[in-house]
Amino acid sequence: MRSQGTTALEVRRFNAAGSVAHADHVATEEPMEIRIVSPSPDGLRTDSVSVTMRTPGHDFELAVGFLFGEGIMRDPATVLDVSYCPDPDAEQLYNVVNVVLSEEAAFDADRLRRNFYTTSSCGVCGKASLEMLQTVGARCPGPGPVLDADVVRSLPGRLREAQPLFDETGGLHAAGLFDAAGCLLTLREDVGRHNAMDKLIGHHLLEGIAPFGSLAVLVSGRASWELMQKAVMAGIPTLVAVGAPSSLAVELAREFGMTLAGFARDDGFNVYAGAERIAGR
Amino acid sequence: MRSQGTTALEVRRFNAAGSVAHADHVATEEPMEIRIVSPSPDGLRTDSVSVTMRTPGHDFELAVGFLFGEGIMRDPATVLDVSYCPDPDAEQLYNVVNVVLSEEAAFDADRLRRNFYTTSSCGVCGKASLEMLQTVGARCPGPGPVLDADVVRSLPGRLREAQPLFDETGGLHAAGLFDAAGCLLTLREDVGRHNAMDKLIGHHLLEGIAPFGSLAVLVSGRASWELMQKAVMAGIPTLVAVGAPSSLAVELAREFGMTLAGFARDDGFNVYAGAERIAGR
Repeated sequence: MRSQGTTALEVRRFNAAGSVAHADHVATEEPMEIRIVSPSPDGLRTDSVSVTMRTPGHDFELAVGFLFGEGIMRDPATVLDVSYCPDPDAEQLYNVVNVVLSEEAAFDADRLRRNFYTTSSCGVCGKASLEMLQTVGARCPGPGPVLDADVVRSLPGRLREAQPLFDETGGLHAAGLFDAAGCLLTLREDVGRHNAMDKLIGHHLLEGIAPFGSLAVLVSGRASWELMQKAVMAGIPTLVAVGAPSSLAVELAREFGMTLAGFARDDGFNVYAGAERIAGR
Repeated sequence: MRSQGTTALEVRRFNAAGSVAHADHVATEEPMEIRIVSPSPDGLRTDSVSVTMRTPGHDFELAVGFLFGEGIMRDPATVLDVSYCPDPDAEQLYNVVNVVLSEEAAFDADRLRRNFYTTSSCGVCGKASLEMLQTVGARCPGPGPVLDADVVRSLPGRLREAQPLFDETGGLHAAGLFDAAGCLLTLREDVGRHNAMDKLIGHHLLEGIAPFGSLAVLVSGRASWELMQKAVMAGIPTLVAVGAPSSLAVELAREFGMTLAGFARDDGFNVYAGAERIAGR
C-alpha cells in the first residue's frame, strides 16, 4: 500500500484544565533510497547513492532533484527512466527509486564515494566547501530578474496560503518557486526542507517549465549551506527564507553572485547578498 | 583563528518605507569532520566517519555524541582521547576532530560502510529503520520520571530564556536536558538540530553528570526520526518538541516505550506516545 503525506493517529491533548483524547494527523516520514542504474563495461550496474527520510509523494522529482543538486547528474536529458524498484521478496513499498542514466551522464560511482571535503589543502573549512561546489559544476547565475521589495514581502503569505499538508499537520517545511511578479509556479512540502527543495527542482527539471535563471525560490525555514547549494547548482539567482541564514549560506551567496534574503515577513526582510536584484522604495 | 558561534556582517534591511544598511549577526555554519583513530592489526588506523555542517563550539561533545547516537561507540570509557587534528600543511582551523577509541570499542570501519537499511527483507521502510536501531543497541528505557503537565508546559519558556546565541541571530536550533522538576541542566545551540542534540548527549557522556534515564530532553523545532533515534540510543525516556512530530518519530517512540510530546507551549501540548509519564490535572 502506498503511504500518504499525512498519517492519522490518536493523541492526548493537554491544556491547563486537564487532558482529552484527540484524533490528529502528523506528517508522514519514511526512508527513501535512491539508486542509479548506469552502463558499465560489464553491463548495467546499480549503485545505492542515498537514503533520505522524506514525506512520501513526488518521489521521482525528489530523486532527480537530489542527483542534480549533488552534481551527480548535470543534464536531465541523460535521465532515461525513473521508476520504483520492485522488491521480488516483499510487497512494493514505493520506497526505492531507480534512476536510469545514459552513458552521456558519465556517472562514476567510485568518484562519488571519495570525500570531496578532505582533499582540500586547508582541511575541512568553508572555503573548501565553496571550491568543492565549483568542481561539481556550480557557476554564477546570470543577472536574473529584479524583484520589487513589495513582491518579496508578499511571498511568505502566498506560500503559506498554498500549503495543504501544513494545515493538516502543522509540521512540514515548504519550498516554492516564484516568477519575478510573485506568482507561485510550484510548491512542494516535506518533513525535510532539503527534500522540499529537491522535489521543487526535480519537478522543473522533469517538466521543463521555466528556466531557473528567471525565478526566485522561497523556503519556509532557515537558509543553510545545503539549501543555498541546491539553488546555486540549479542556477536560481534569488533565494528568500522566512527564517535566518547561516554564515556559510551568506558566504556562498556572495561568492556565486546570488541574492539571499532572510526573515521575510509582510512588513520587511533583510538582504544578505545581491541587493541589486531587489528594487526597493 | 578559531571561529565563533556568530558571525558579524552588513545587511540591507527593507521595510515598507525603504531600506537601510544595518550591522547584524548570523549563526556561524562550518563543516566539521569526525575521524576515528583505532587499533588495527597493522597499528593505529584513521577513518573519516562523517562531515557535518555545524556551529563551531562544543566540538568534542558533538563528535562523541554523534558516535554514540549512531551506535558506533557504546561506552564512553572506550574513548581514550578527543582532540583537534592538526593539519601539517595548513593552519589549524579547528574543523577536524579525532576521537581515539580503545580496542574494547571494537570499531569496525567496514561494517560501518555497509548500508544498514538495504539489508532488510522489506527493502527500505520504517519497520526496517526500527529494526536497524535494535541491531546497533537501542533498548527501551526504564520507567523514567513522571513529569507534571505544568512542568512540561514551562519547558519551552525555560529553554528560550537560556538561549544566548538565538538572541543575537534569531537563527539557531536548541536542545536542552531537564530533570523531572523542570530544571535545565544543559543547553546546546547549533544551526543543525541534530548537532545540538549530539552536543547535549556528548556533554553528559563526557562529564557523566546525570543518568539519562532520569531526564527529559526538549528540542526547539520539530521531532523527526533522527532526533528520536538519538534520544532512544541515549536512553532518555521523554522527548518534548516545540514543533510537530513526524509519523516515524511517533512510531519509534511507541515501539521503544518512550514518551513523545509535541507542540509544547505555555498553554498546552500534545502527547503522541507514553502518556503514563505525564501527570495531568
